[in-house]
Amino acid sequence: MTDAFTTIGLISKPDDPAVAETLGVLCRDLLARGATVLLDETAAAGFERPPAAVLDRQTLAARCDLAIVVGGDGTLLNAARSLVDAEVAVLGVNLGRLGFLADVSPEDMPERLGAILAGEYQEERRTLLHAAIIRDGETLSESDALNDVVVHKWDIARMIELETRIDQRLLNTLRADGLIVSTPTGSTAYALSGGGPILDPALQALVLVPICPHTLSNRPVVVSDRVCIDIRVYGSEDREAQVTCDGQVNFLLGAGDLIRIRRKAQTLRLIHPARHDHFAIMRRKLRWSEQP
Amino acid sequence: MTDAFTTIGLISKPDDPAVAETLGVLCRDLLARGATVLLDETAAAGFERPPAAVLDRQTLAARCDLAIVVGGDGTLLNAARSLVDAEVAVLGVNLGRLGFLADVSPEDMPERLGAILAGEYQEERRTLLHAAIIRDGETLSESDALNDVVVHKWDIARMIELETRIDQRLLNTLRADGLIVSTPTGSTAYALSGGGPILDPALQALVLVPICPHTLSNRPVVVSDRVCIDIRVYGSEDREAQVTCDGQVNFLLGAGDLIRIRRKAQTLRLIHPARHDHFAIMRRKLRWSEQP
Amino acid sequence: MTDAFTTIGLISKPDDPAVAETLGVLCRDLLARGATVLLDETAAAGFERPPAAVLDRQTLAARCDLAIVVGGDGTLLNAARSLVDAEVAVLGVNLGRLGFLADVSPEDMPERLGAILAGEYQEERRTLLHAAIIRDGETLSESDALNDVVVHKWDIARMIELETRIDQRLLNTLRADGLIVSTPTGSTAYALSGGGPILDPALQALVLVPICPHTLSNRPVVVSDRVCIDIRVYGSEDREAQVTCDGQVNFLLGAGDLIRIRRKAQTLRLIHPARHDHFAIMRRKLRWSEQP
Amino acid sequence: MTDAFTTIGLISKPDDPAVAETLGVLCRDLLARGATVLLDETAAAGFERPPAAVLDRQTLAARCDLAIVVGGDGTLLNAARSLVDAEVAVLGVNLGRLGFLADVSPEDMPERLGAILAGEYQEERRTLLHAAIIRDGETLSESDALNDVVVHKWDIARMIELETRIDQRLLNTLRADGLIVSTPTGSTAYALSGGGPILDPALQALVLVPICPHTLSNRPVVVSDRVCIDIRVYGSEDREAQVTCDGQVNFLLGAGDLIRIRRKAQTLRLIHPARHDHFAIMRRKLRWSEQP
Repeated sequence: MTDAFTTIGLISKPDDPAVAETLGVLCRDLLARGATVLLDETAAAGFERPPAAVLDRQTLAARCDLAIVVGGDGTLLNAARSLVDAEVAVLGVNLGRLGFLADVSPEDMPERLGAILAGEYQEERRTLLHAAIIRDGETLSESDALNDVVVHKWDIARMIELETRIDQRLLNTLRADGLIVSTPTGSTAYALSGGGPILDPALQALVLVPICPHTLSNRPVVVSDRVCIDIRVYGSEDREAQVTCDGQVNFLLGAGDLIRIRRKAQTLRLIHPARHDHFAIMRRKLRWSEQP
Repeated sequence: MTDAFTTIGLISKPDDPAVAETLGVLCRDLLARGATVLLDETAAAGFERPPAAVLDRQTLAARCDLAIVVGGDGTLLNAARSLVDAEVAVLGVNLGRLGFLADVSPEDMPERLGAILAGEYQEERRTLLHAAIIRDGETLSESDALNDVVVHKWDIARMIELETRIDQRLLNTLRADGLIVSTPTGSTAYALSGGGPILDPALQALVLVPICPHTLSNRPVVVSDRVCIDIRVYGSEDREAQVTCDGQVNFLLGAGDLIRIRRKAQTLRLIHPARHDHFAIMRRKLRWSEQP
Repeated sequence: MTDAFTTIGLISKPDDPAVAETLGVLCRDLLARGATVLLDETAAAGFERPPAAVLDRQTLAARCDLAIVVGGDGTLLNAARSLVDAEVAVLGVNLGRLGFLADVSPEDMPERLGAILAGEYQEERRTLLHAAIIRDGETLSESDALNDVVVHKWDIARMIELETRIDQRLLNTLRADGLIVSTPTGSTAYALSGGGPILDPALQALVLVPICPHTLSNRPVVVSDRVCIDIRVYGSEDREAQVTCDGQVNFLLGAGDLIRIRRKAQTLRLIHPARHDHFAIMRRKLRWSEQP
Repeated sequence: MTDAFTTIGLISKPDDPAVAETLGVLCRDLLARGATVLLDETAAAGFERPPAAVLDRQTLAARCDLAIVVGGDGTLLNAARSLVDAEVAVLGVNLGRLGFLADVSPEDMPERLGAILAGEYQEERRTLLHAAIIRDGETLSESDALNDVVVHKWDIARMIELETRIDQRLLNTLRADGLIVSTPTGSTAYALSGGGPILDPALQALVLVPICPHTLSNRPVVVSDRVCIDIRVYGSEDREAQVTCDGQVNFLLGAGDLIRIRRKAQTLRLIHPARHDHFAIMRRKLRWSEQP
């Protein structure tokens, strides 16, 4: 038995009318069960008259002990980055299409909710990355990422040349469209499209996946998540390469900028219903069990 | 025995000091053999005092019967697009690194040159693509490509959604970073990095290679080069996707633009020394014969 | 309008009780429409009392103008090899699971049958391969293949070394588990699992797909189907390599044996209902249209 | 500074005349430096008159504190399995071609040897797998593997169906030619040919790589090396599947046999010269730094 939850924050996919109904049902259900409900601005927009207090994301993070995120995996990625520092537990409710992260359907929610509030759930710790853009020794910008940090060409037609160091040691130089550094969580997202392997979420590892590498033996490399990864883009002019975190946060690179990627100290508390089976979700999402 | 050549145009990689020496030797050698030599502006820039007439590319194309291109595969791609309509024979001299197209080294050139001018050579016909960007039924811009036409995301973080039709029939919709349409010539270039197969240059076929497709069964598809390929980018705003020909010519796409790709009627006359062996070049470039 | 069919041969998957009902319905329907029905031994086994003449496969092939094959793609591969020389038209009825070749379901059959018998159908010509095992200049054994000819290691733990020549010219040597030579028809079968591209059935091409190659740049190669492919297994002892046609016909190789693969002169007449769409079958079989 | 070595066992590739000279030089050098030298039978065969005591492998393992293995990676794999239980340090000398494991050349050996004997070296711990074939609850056979345990089809033409469980939980069922379970050490060997990622040797992980899977989304999966992997071959008759350890030790499977794979408790003490750089060996072996 794990901790029970009493103050629940609601966060949702913005600007999606489909979300309003699910939010409404969920909010009424929580209030009926005696929970304190807080809404962030995305969730409040789903109500004509918000039935609970509306807070900015950081205040909500500080006050709730469980955040329920209604949307898809993209919404949860966004929420995870803003909630991880406050150590809030996070539960994802998907809008019809099973996600790797948002793995509870609106239909199952009423049945699951009582058990979860009462402390019957599974909690996993998911690793995040922290990426910093460093110029002349100073950090210009930084961001967390739950899925991946991608360094990729920008505003130019073809390949860029990347040098990667692992704990200061040269791993390789790479001519490619870019390089994906992915957590186990991200290994079923963009990294998989790029040809990377699937990492078990429990594995303390990262994978570096080259995007369309010129040299065919430049294959994905899996390393411990305790390493420091330094990436430089060679010979590029300003604005010819970009860093993207979770496909959502972007930084344009100047010539000579260093991208430093480390495991973030805080981990995400991801909540699943009891008897959650990650492999079963993979089999269903990747259609492993079906015969075409 | 094939036709002898008497008027030779010289084209070179621009702004590369390494090219000047090779050009000088080549030019003297051609004049000593009694050939008429014409220089385009890139080649003329390699001489303090150009030793032959300097013409713009189109006039040169109209007057010479053989163009010798000094540089790498990239220089030859550029030259090929500007020479193909004039049906000029094209020979590539590489600057030290063997190319798939520029397959004569400066060292071998003096020995090869006499034979080639005398008509002892092999001539291949290489297929080009023609790409047109069509908006509301009108062609906005168009370009040829010897290697590939690539439709790819631009100025956005993640995937675009493409619909591809072959001779008006729906092939598929695709969520990906982009789609490469490649000739056999281009199949050893960017398409290979994207996971495509190698097409024999003699094959009358094209290959469609998805770049980092979301659906893992979206694999490269090889079709006849007689088809008409229509690609639309779905749901994109202006400037979220781009078309690139041979990595050198770019067009930004507006929402709803259609990209129509067909085989170009004219083919490139690519010249090789006698006893040229394309497979031997592949084995050497792709290091098939070596043991690591 | 194409030719009408009057004499119909029935062939089925052997030893499958599920096939009997479909065969019974089909046979009654054909007789009711006035067709002459012939059964081969596999189909006859589906009836307690065969309602039509029972013939061996070759006699059936000689007498019927359409063969309906009830089973899956595997049954159709087997039937195709035995019917191709007689130039019989072949139609595949699948048992519940859509096939690339057996693309009519038992449920749709009654509705389709009248039209097909009346000559309303599409006819495609599918290329087959012919493989010969040659020792000391003599052909030891030979077989046709509609999907693929595979040369693979046998009874040894690791890789074999293969030398491949295209029209006598060395393509490469290859250390691998084997090499798949596939028709366009076979490109969606084993060759796809091995990392090969999809070839349009209309394309006059073959693809060579290495199985687990030691050198990572040994990628699939697509060549014209007019070539002669010669494969030798190097340094192997007797019985260390095998040739398999369509996964169904096997020959053990002796040391030094040559495998010669050519396009077969006769092509398979594959029948589809009118308005057949091969791309639609690919989208459905490969789940291109679905969102996971 | 690590421990010095005084008793050195020599093991070599059997039946290779090239090995004799290297062994002779090495043996004289060791004796001149005052070391006690022991030969196993493979090494003794390289001498007309063995200059040192000849012991069977197990006695040699019990008595020496360093084993020097002269050959290639294959020889070292064999030696590793026989030495790991005795906790002997192992150093690999290659015969001309750099290995991932046998990373000292005969030319460098004289220079390196003094330092290594004196305790100036790097020591790595490499994980091995232990595979057991279990029938009706009893272990029929078992073996260790430094690179990989491979379950693959045998004596049948096409795919087998495998069910894999991780710590008793179903991962997936798989139709494929086989499944490779590889250590980080093996990730640059057969698993790489099968499309697997490269695992850093320091990572406590295993990778499961399907061989030619029928379902294209069956991708390599990386898991912790603390798990228990259970594999069953479904619906196979006796002798239709085989288990191979390091490509060297084979077991035929009976219908219903279970293959249980765990990390071996003992790890291999792999010795490298000081300033050894694993990434540099990868760059050289995989030709990452070269331009084709």
